[in-house]
Amino acid sequence: MENKKIPYKIYLEESEMPTSWYNLRADMINKPAPLLNPATGQPLSAKELSAVFCDELVQQELDDTTPFIEIPEEIRNFYKMYRPSPLVRAYCLEEKLQTPAKIYYKFEGNNTSGSHKLNSAIAQAYYAKKQGLKGVTTETGAGQWGTALSMACSYLDLDCKVYMVKVSYEQKPFRREVMRTYGASVVPSPSETTEVGRKILAEHPGTNGSLGCAISEAVEVAGKDPNYRYVLGSVLNQVMLHQSVIGLEAKKAMDKYDIKPDIIIGCAGGGSNLGGLIAPFMGEKIKGQADYRIIAVEPASCPSFTRGKYAYDFCDTGMICPLAKMYTLGSGFMPSPNHAGGLRFHGMSSTLSQLYDDGLMEAVSVEQTEVFEAAVQFARVEGILPAPESSHAIRVAIDEALKCKETGEEKTIVFGLTGTGYFDLFAYEKFNNGDMSDYIPTDEEIAASLANLPKV
Amino acid sequence: MENKKIPYKIYLEESEMPTSWYNLRADMINKPAPLLNPATGQPLSAKELSAVFCDELVQQELDDTTPFIEIPEEIRNFYKMYRPSPLVRAYCLEEKLQTPAKIYYKFEGNNTSGSHKLNSAIAQAYYAKKQGLKGVTTETGAGQWGTALSMACSYLDLDCKVYMVKVSYEQKPFRREVMRTYGASVVPSPSETTEVGRKILAEHPGTNGSLGCAISEAVEVAGKDPNYRYVLGSVLNQVMLHQSVIGLEAKKAMDKYDIKPDIIIGCAGGGSNLGGLIAPFMGEKIKGQADYRIIAVEPASCPSFTRGKYAYDFCDTGMICPLAKMYTLGSGFMPSPNHAGGLRFHGMSSTLSQLYDDGLMEAVSVEQTEVFEAAVQFARVEGILPAPESSHAIRVAIDEALKCKETGEEKTIVFGLTGTGYFDLFAYEKFNNGDMSDYIPTDEEIAASLANLPKV
Repeated sequence: MENKKIPYKIYLEESEMPTSWYNLRADMINKPAPLLNPATGQPLSAKELSAVFCDELVQQELDDTTPFIEIPEEIRNFYKMYRPSPLVRAYCLEEKLQTPAKIYYKFEGNNTSGSHKLNSAIAQAYYAKKQGLKGVTTETGAGQWGTALSMACSYLDLDCKVYMVKVSYEQKPFRREVMRTYGASVVPSPSETTEVGRKILAEHPGTNGSLGCAISEAVEVAGKDPNYRYVLGSVLNQVMLHQSVIGLEAKKAMDKYDIKPDIIIGCAGGGSNLGGLIAPFMGEKIKGQADYRIIAVEPASCPSFTRGKYAYDFCDTGMICPLAKMYTLGSGFMPSPNHAGGLRFHGMSSTLSQLYDDGLMEAVSVEQTEVFEAAVQFARVEGILPAPESSHAIRVAIDEALKCKETGEEKTIVFGLTGTGYFDLFAYEKFNNGDMSDYIPTDEEIAASLANLPKV
Repeated sequence: MENKKIPYKIYLEESEMPTSWYNLRADMINKPAPLLNPATGQPLSAKELSAVFCDELVQQELDDTTPFIEIPEEIRNFYKMYRPSPLVRAYCLEEKLQTPAKIYYKFEGNNTSGSHKLNSAIAQAYYAKKQGLKGVTTETGAGQWGTALSMACSYLDLDCKVYMVKVSYEQKPFRREVMRTYGASVVPSPSETTEVGRKILAEHPGTNGSLGCAISEAVEVAGKDPNYRYVLGSVLNQVMLHQSVIGLEAKKAMDKYDIKPDIIIGCAGGGSNLGGLIAPFMGEKIKGQADYRIIAVEPASCPSFTRGKYAYDFCDTGMICPLAKMYTLGSGFMPSPNHAGGLRFHGMSSTLSQLYDDGLMEAVSVEQTEVFEAAVQFARVEGILPAPESSHAIRVAIDEALKCKETGEEKTIVFGLTGTGYFDLFAYEKFNNGDMSDYIPTDEEIAASLANLPKV
């Protein structure tokens, strides 16, 4: 029951912002499987991981017992530049749909990276700076993560090298320029600057690049210079940890107004946004304190949860990264070229994979034409042009709200609006012109890609 | 003196949002000069104006006696989708500059139009809808206004025809696609769809178009169809009125924390943002209740305040619009092609022109290279990539803060951050590559343009 009139946007006070991240793994009964050394098949030690990641991030990566980890004051101050993010009551969308459902979204797009990625970027950059490093390397596909990391590094005066998937580098010059404006060096991948890049270029001249290949390059560069470390914007446990600010803020905002969600929906690529949004709710669910339907939404063209296999796999194409146990389509899987936007990683966060395997959450896949239909419907009534990624969640939120319309149920639906689509207008143009198409990989394609899983 | 710790961002509660616009003209001692009929040289009557503008907007245009005009509930609800906008304390910029000055900015960019333009777009669209019209026509240059109007029309289910300066139409395909996503029809101007367009094309085949020319086309189309009216995003009294929400919110947020600004700074093209931001402060200044330094910042390449003439002039190139008394460079004036972003209108709001002529505000002009330097400096510490237009205000805010550093004065500076630069990355790319140049028109150029002022 609603005790108070719910405003359009609920903003927490700065004093109400989280001071600790919530480490959901501490409350999980079945812990996510550890990262393995691909050479030995054994769990990676902190020492091994420290060659690639900053020391403090290694601790966070391995820690599955501490439920709350304090957010350093410097990071909290940076968060204040663009957080708290609003929890928005979608009154206009509800009216348009004529649904009795109550729809909320946590909007993470009000910053220049245009997405939630900044929440982890500043944390990872901070620990690198604290360790006295000179810089960090990373990869970016659609560009949100690279932009976020550039912003964080610029703020902390840290060097930032971004390997950007070549096709995105060429097709998204604006993303590239934002990163350069924030002082990052942006290299189209595959490049001649790394061994793995040269090898891939020799084998596939004229390739468009892929996220897995850009990861390989960024990891190689960080591994060869002791003043650099590699950072990653999704998939990892540490990223889920940092992104828990989304869920913690959302839950506090809901608690203030006695809002109890029935359904929580998020898009899922590597899982960073979804993992962050659901963290405190999932914690309650595991402890039996509350029940929620939790739905991961993925593209039908890259369906790791709904059609992948739960197994150990490489995180990168070059197969130089650790092995992670996850729902995967195989490290060689590539979404078809007509797929717009992100959510194109072949695997899924180990944490979310374990929760899904334990039956604690659901997953659905949706096709991109219906996703863009939802995006435009949303934009026209709620005013925000959503990112293609976020629009996957919008699609399912609308579908659930329409089910409520049929049944008359007044369910409360919350979804993550991870970002804005200002840099995705080529995709919107395609949709506006009626040129957007769908693609569902065949069983044979997925089986072929899964045939190359490493033997563990 | 500060009584409470000032947060990074001050958000008003929805219940604290303004319920009336503030009509500064009611408190002005010297009223802005009326619009004249170019054929007769006489002030335009409400009836004459009603052929072009909606009836209620005509009333607002002419009303210089009612200090507060109620904001209809429907508009207030729309405002709640993206307002209140935050008043941000620029702690990070202050630290970077090592200045004792306290810097604040009112950030209007957190909506898909990327600027403050939405504040007046929804008001103008609302009155058109209320009058039972089928649609509205307008022009857009850089694209913020066209996007804002598209969003408002889409929300109200109103037809929207945008004449977009041809060079922008071609160079800013993303802006065009946002408008199309919101259902607007976007026509590159000059076009074959109007008499004035055909005439200009015949005289200047291959022309890039101009704002003044796009205005002429939009006005012609609205004038010929009784189900349409023309709307304009700046310059007009009604626009200053709607934009007063910026200043009203800013003042209320400051009052909550006992913040008294010494200097208020805004960029000025047609004057909509500056007029809105300063409205309540200027009201106090006129009544002798407080004193503020108020600074308009304009591009050195389009210096209507600092080098223009205070005279009656046409608002459009086609000379079919009413005459307005304003600081003007002549209706044929065009900023040089290397000028990036907006702030390219040849004249200035009649309201602001009168205030400037009365000595109630100052004006300075700045060159674009120094503007982009300020933009990048700001982006790197405050996290927001600013619009080129807004960066004019940033430049002067930084300059004033650096003066405080020299003198040790703890002045409080407030500036308007009107929008984001996400659609201006070609300009940032130029700057990043060191290819940006400045241009200051010669005295002869300005004199030549002013020679064509209408005789009144």
